[in-house]
Amino acid sequence: MSMILGAMIFYPGGEHLASWRLPGARPERYLDLGYYRDFARTAERGGFATLFIADELYVWDRFASGIDHVVNIRTEPFTLLGALSQVTERIGLAATVSTTYNEPYHIARKLASLDFLSEGRAGWNVVTSASDEEAWNFGRDANLDHAVRYRRAAEFIDVVNGLWDSWDDDAFRYDKESGYFADAAKLHTLDHRGEFFTVRGPLNIARPPQGRPVIFQAGASEAGRALAGATAEAVFTMGTNAVRGAKILYDDYKARAAANGRNPDHLKVLPALSPVIGGTLREAEEYLDEIEALTPERLSLDWLSHYLQFDVSSHPMDETFQPDLSVPTNQVRSVQEQIGRLVGSGSYTLREVNRALLRRRFLVGTPDMIADWMTERYRAGAADGFMLAFSSIPVGVEAFVDLVVPELTKRGVYHGGYRGRTHRENLGLPVPPSRYA
Amino acid sequence: MSMILGAMIFYPGGEHLASWRLPGARPERYLDLGYYRDFARTAERGGFATLFIADELYVWDRFASGIDHVVNIRTEPFTLLGALSQVTERIGLAATVSTTYNEPYHIARKLASLDFLSEGRAGWNVVTSASDEEAWNFGRDANLDHAVRYRRAAEFIDVVNGLWDSWDDDAFRYDKESGYFADAAKLHTLDHRGEFFTVRGPLNIARPPQGRPVIFQAGASEAGRALAGATAEAVFTMGTNAVRGAKILYDDYKARAAANGRNPDHLKVLPALSPVIGGTLREAEEYLDEIEALTPERLSLDWLSHYLQFDVSSHPMDETFQPDLSVPTNQVRSVQEQIGRLVGSGSYTLREVNRALLRRRFLVGTPDMIADWMTERYRAGAADGFMLAFSSIPVGVEAFVDLVVPELTKRGVYHGGYRGRTHRENLGLPVPPSRYA
Repeated sequence: MSMILGAMIFYPGGEHLASWRLPGARPERYLDLGYYRDFARTAERGGFATLFIADELYVWDRFASGIDHVVNIRTEPFTLLGALSQVTERIGLAATVSTTYNEPYHIARKLASLDFLSEGRAGWNVVTSASDEEAWNFGRDANLDHAVRYRRAAEFIDVVNGLWDSWDDDAFRYDKESGYFADAAKLHTLDHRGEFFTVRGPLNIARPPQGRPVIFQAGASEAGRALAGATAEAVFTMGTNAVRGAKILYDDYKARAAANGRNPDHLKVLPALSPVIGGTLREAEEYLDEIEALTPERLSLDWLSHYLQFDVSSHPMDETFQPDLSVPTNQVRSVQEQIGRLVGSGSYTLREVNRALLRRRFLVGTPDMIADWMTERYRAGAADGFMLAFSSIPVGVEAFVDLVVPELTKRGVYHGGYRGRTHRENLGLPVPPSRYA
Repeated sequence: MSMILGAMIFYPGGEHLASWRLPGARPERYLDLGYYRDFARTAERGGFATLFIADELYVWDRFASGIDHVVNIRTEPFTLLGALSQVTERIGLAATVSTTYNEPYHIARKLASLDFLSEGRAGWNVVTSASDEEAWNFGRDANLDHAVRYRRAAEFIDVVNGLWDSWDDDAFRYDKESGYFADAAKLHTLDHRGEFFTVRGPLNIARPPQGRPVIFQAGASEAGRALAGATAEAVFTMGTNAVRGAKILYDDYKARAAANGRNPDHLKVLPALSPVIGGTLREAEEYLDEIEALTPERLSLDWLSHYLQFDVSSHPMDETFQPDLSVPTNQVRSVQEQIGRLVGSGSYTLREVNRALLRRRFLVGTPDMIADWMTERYRAGAADGFMLAFSSIPVGVEAFVDLVVPELTKRGVYHGGYRGRTHRENLGLPVPPSRYA
């Protein structure tokens, strides 16, 4: 089958914190349906299988610069996807669901409803939520431990899958003559009692058109990969590894699926990718420079502090950086290790660190180079496709569809268009049978 | 101003349990967007201010007949309203929210998002959820006590209102030149700590176009009316009272609003109304008979048991009914009182009780009679308008718009069309200022 493409939105303006300041950006439209409709239709023009709306449950207000300079507003994704279901035709509609701050009965209903309203195009990205800020909005003092969150996620998925199977596919008779709306023998009451959830069921909606909306995941930790091997149907991975590293990661996910008795082909591995596209490499580099130049220095320092989990905010960007040695040794070691991975050993400025981090997040090049990069990984069996997180919106998605998609097609790795009607069909995933079948 | 009309959907097929069996009913479409789109567009043609989707969080499986004969499937209403926002133009979009089984941060986001996507048409109906079946789907053994539920509802509304005010109306600068996306001085962190909720905030979406989506309520108990007087902007009341009873109820709600320091005109009182329309009274009566004849006897008995909270299911429908005197006296007294209010004292069959109950729920008549009935209450100051719960869908809403609306217009009590763009404008409600204004 063809390479799979997904189109993701995390920040409404694009992947870079300063994308909203670019000439083509439309920050005043970030809460308008039309903005997302245009994005989705461009992605449909490019034959993207999935539109994925990432989500968070808080405002990034740890630093004042986060409020001043960062896009902290977003629409609730399932309300948005409900709306988009009526102004798109074929693209799959997926969004983040936190299993730490939701109830499975609500989520099962919401996803089943979206699957009906979109005629089989729903999907969900299971996340466990990592920040304390989210906990504070839901009555907790701090986030749950990592291991607890993953146990909860696994149970959450199991309950949701069970609720979707409440009614057999042929449970409804709608028989006006006899008066039988449903066949009681085809209704199943879940009666789940687990560590985190007690849910009787049944769900008050029919089994979704896709059987189950598609499950995405992105966890890279051991617990995250274990959960993906057991339950995910597509994973997003860090995309800018060397081919060899990507292949090892790919094989790891496939092996985990097989070890769970699953067909490895039913777990799609999609490295995430943020292209910065230029007519020449130099133009692309300049475009990245332009985005970076739009980032206020205060924000860069705060964001680095956030990323490194180490306060670097009092260090000037252009002087040689040494961690403050008055803080605990393990913290110093952690920040030195992280920075070492980015810029190697020796002396460096924070601007150099920041630049290295950017270069790791973005793939900078011509359409030809980006298509080659993707094709190489696809042909090497290191990717079933890619999850595109555009550096800027709408410019980035338009450039990708207009310039990179034709290159991929020319190389014979991407067919474009849609092979089916449902999200599953377009991802090459089967409809799962009911657990009662 | 004109009489206000709202159009409600509880059961997808209409208010009567057997409506799905009527000739015009389309039960196989109850999970299709097109079914609700057609309903909404008919309501828009009639100038309805509000489309209201009622909701429950369980399957009515207490009796086998509930599974066999009742419509137990529905779409999650906010996903549905998100979709409807793109295929309707002017009608307000409201749905039930249980404050017992939700988190305010999620609900505030969802409603604010719907308000943006619909350009100011969102609303919510606050309910506290009364059935144990719902508790069982959310990790509880039984529902919360009535008083506790209402305290929780009041706090829930306060938190949601507070979250909506997180950002001032002019908090966003989108200033590409300076790099300031927002003005930090115009951001407010709620820091709520109450009996039921601890929510730090701020909300990660701008203040909604309407300031706050419209708050509906329907509680008729003392606690329900007290909450409505303090917080509701529209209430649905039991609609088939005599004019005098309706007027007393109307005045009670208005007085409660005033006692809370509110303008009574900003709490709209909308009796609920289920018309059964015929060309002649006889035709309308026959139509009700037809619906009732489609109700399996087993279902009628189980539904009566549910309604009376007293097991009558082993009594034949057509024999004189006496409560089984082996059960506790207070239960016998309760069922006798309830039935007494319906059919008076003396002997009666369960079929007569059932029929009396039906007659109380439905208003049976010609378009002229129904328009007179509504006009009388409107002119008497016993209603600001009506919430229509059609006995059958789509036939009932089409008949009302085609036949009753012109009669109301002729009487000068209803203007039709839309006076504004937003839900508030069409209900004659002001935009509430932020609590920080």
